[in-house]
Amino acid sequence: MTTEKIQGGINAPKGFYAAGLRAGIREGKENKDMALIYSEVPAVCAGTFTRNIVKAAPVLWDQEIVKNHGSARAVVINSGIANACTGSLGYENCREEAAYAADLLGLAPEEVLTASTGVIGPQLNMEIVKKGIKMLAESRSRTTEAADDAATAILTTDTHKKEIALTACIGGKKVTIGGMCKGSGMIHPNMGTMLAFVTSDAAIEQSVLQQMVKEVVEDTFNMVSVDGDTSTNDTCLVLCNGLAGNPVLEEDSSDLPVFREAITEILTWLSKQIAGDGEGCTRLFEVTVKGAGTRKEAKIISKSVVCSNLTKAAVFGKDANWGRILCAMGYSGANFDPALVDIDLESSKGSLSIVREGIAADYSEERAADILSANPVRAILHLHQGEESATAWGCDLTYEYVRINADYRS
Amino acid sequence: MTTEKIQGGINAPKGFYAAGLRAGIREGKENKDMALIYSEVPAVCAGTFTRNIVKAAPVLWDQEIVKNHGSARAVVINSGIANACTGSLGYENCREEAAYAADLLGLAPEEVLTASTGVIGPQLNMEIVKKGIKMLAESRSRTTEAADDAATAILTTDTHKKEIALTACIGGKKVTIGGMCKGSGMIHPNMGTMLAFVTSDAAIEQSVLQQMVKEVVEDTFNMVSVDGDTSTNDTCLVLCNGLAGNPVLEEDSSDLPVFREAITEILTWLSKQIAGDGEGCTRLFEVTVKGAGTRKEAKIISKSVVCSNLTKAAVFGKDANWGRILCAMGYSGANFDPALVDIDLESSKGSLSIVREGIAADYSEERAADILSANPVRAILHLHQGEESATAWGCDLTYEYVRINADYRS
Repeated sequence: MTTEKIQGGINAPKGFYAAGLRAGIREGKENKDMALIYSEVPAVCAGTFTRNIVKAAPVLWDQEIVKNHGSARAVVINSGIANACTGSLGYENCREEAAYAADLLGLAPEEVLTASTGVIGPQLNMEIVKKGIKMLAESRSRTTEAADDAATAILTTDTHKKEIALTACIGGKKVTIGGMCKGSGMIHPNMGTMLAFVTSDAAIEQSVLQQMVKEVVEDTFNMVSVDGDTSTNDTCLVLCNGLAGNPVLEEDSSDLPVFREAITEILTWLSKQIAGDGEGCTRLFEVTVKGAGTRKEAKIISKSVVCSNLTKAAVFGKDANWGRILCAMGYSGANFDPALVDIDLESSKGSLSIVREGIAADYSEERAADILSANPVRAILHLHQGEESATAWGCDLTYEYVRINADYRS
Repeated sequence: MTTEKIQGGINAPKGFYAAGLRAGIREGKENKDMALIYSEVPAVCAGTFTRNIVKAAPVLWDQEIVKNHGSARAVVINSGIANACTGSLGYENCREEAAYAADLLGLAPEEVLTASTGVIGPQLNMEIVKKGIKMLAESRSRTTEAADDAATAILTTDTHKKEIALTACIGGKKVTIGGMCKGSGMIHPNMGTMLAFVTSDAAIEQSVLQQMVKEVVEDTFNMVSVDGDTSTNDTCLVLCNGLAGNPVLEEDSSDLPVFREAITEILTWLSKQIAGDGEGCTRLFEVTVKGAGTRKEAKIISKSVVCSNLTKAAVFGKDANWGRILCAMGYSGANFDPALVDIDLESSKGSLSIVREGIAADYSEERAADILSANPVRAILHLHQGEESATAWGCDLTYEYVRINADYRS
């Protein structure tokens, strides 16, 4: 892998501008709540969206654009209100948001994607939204600070912004990719995550990009769970404006795997950021299944374990309660022989075998608690049934998760 | 319905004896941890068991008996250790437990069912278990106190015992049915619940009983979720010894529906007890879906809502966060039109429309919080798609759930 990490987030690729600021949608006078991504030339766009049949207005709007146009110039994002379960007025507000931004930026409405995150139910205050869009259009810039502002403005209960950028050499040209996302609660993506945005100056065919994003999301965002709740707003958008000047990536381009690896690296990093910053969580919990008969079974089992409330509470309590892990594997729906299973725990404090052939290994509970006290914590589950593997990312279940969600709206 | 509630729990039906006492398996000097159910004549037995592929030793033992013999005289139960993930030694211990009890009670080993609940992993101390069985055999009696002791001895993190008895008139005879169960954590039964035992003096064919129990469990225990974790030990056993003297109930008996209704009443009551005493919970949360196109969809949707961590935390916080309910309906996998959905909240404090046609009704948050402060809380979700309905039972998600499970073994 020949990627290199750099600064600049979503502004790192050529031709992208960002902005993030407070318009007044979220409570709390300090909280930024609107962001803009803008490309100086048309960018091919790919997207994956929530499979929840209750879809937010911006999801419906973006799906239409990705499907029928496959190209965009801007994304307008707000936090604070999800614009979900808002009926026809909600959709009309979303359309008006895109049209207003398009007007200010000299674009067609269908060149403007939108995304929202926050409380389900309330309508957007369009006066505030329009004021925000005007300020965003005026203040957009190519600076790292502007990218940081955008990454901050999309957050809700997240505790820190999540942005990354890297370069790769493709077709003899330096191609740059940037990404940002937000996660925290209602995170059990069934296609993308709450909100994730990736920019790149790569030149690539839209159909190739869409297929690639769909596949990579399956192995990254779709392997994350904070609480088992699939949002109404999950959106992952990837914009590629071609300014790197590489030969356009097509299905049979020899450099396509390099770009795919770079995208995978970005989405994997963002996925781990979301899991590790789950609502109230103290630790990223990474579960890898090895030796599965099929990759699908490896995915089902690893995801079942990161979704288990009992296992998550045990991680919070630094309790090597392997019975709960084996139990969650057992009810996952995947097939395996419990009598063959080995389980190891691993962290920066070392590693420990806790189960051998389905029953307790002879280990020290104190040593296990010590390993579980670090962050991140990894569990490796070996099925000894085949050669396939998969990894899922989750977090521990804490008092703080309950506090945040018992009192989210007040 | 012509059933009548009476005292006596599992000892209420003719010919059943019970005992419950402390053998020394659980920690805490006060905790009873072994129970016995004994019938003075052979009882036909039906059972449903966990669908987790990691099955505890007693589940394997009982499945064999229900399938191949269909008749039993006794059940030996322990709490504290689940005898799950204990390998061949665990199964041998289970077999020895049955054989030892059979010897003392003058029965064949395959007339003795077993059940265990508690920590997954450790082996049973057979010296303690045998001492316990000896005391149980000696102290068994037909008193209400003995039934109470048995219902107490099967508990783990439950806060109170769960027992019921009722009578019905079948074939001109008074038939009595008693039941007890335990739930609390790792409760997301995929067939029965953690442990439930029903006794009756009804005369009934084993195949008719097995089919009825299977069907009724689908609508009762399988509609309960405390935390989404399906246990390795879930067991529901129904023993009918025929001493009521009614004509043997067969598939086409005109009184079979009466017995079925009585069994349904028992299992429904036990299911609500389990949900309402979920680990750490403060409130039973009952979700009824009405107007569904199919009964299966009504069940999927109602269960999805009671399983949603976000909805459960909102119930704990007395927050009428209907967006989370609609969200959980949407990712359930069932099909419906979100724009038609009405949602009402209901409790002893009154009822309130919070959603009409998929968007917020004009309601007072204070009034909603007041309704949500009572126990139990009910949500009625009307899909306006058809005539089918279903109910699921869960509970709120609290700090106490996290505390119990972060620190269960210590």
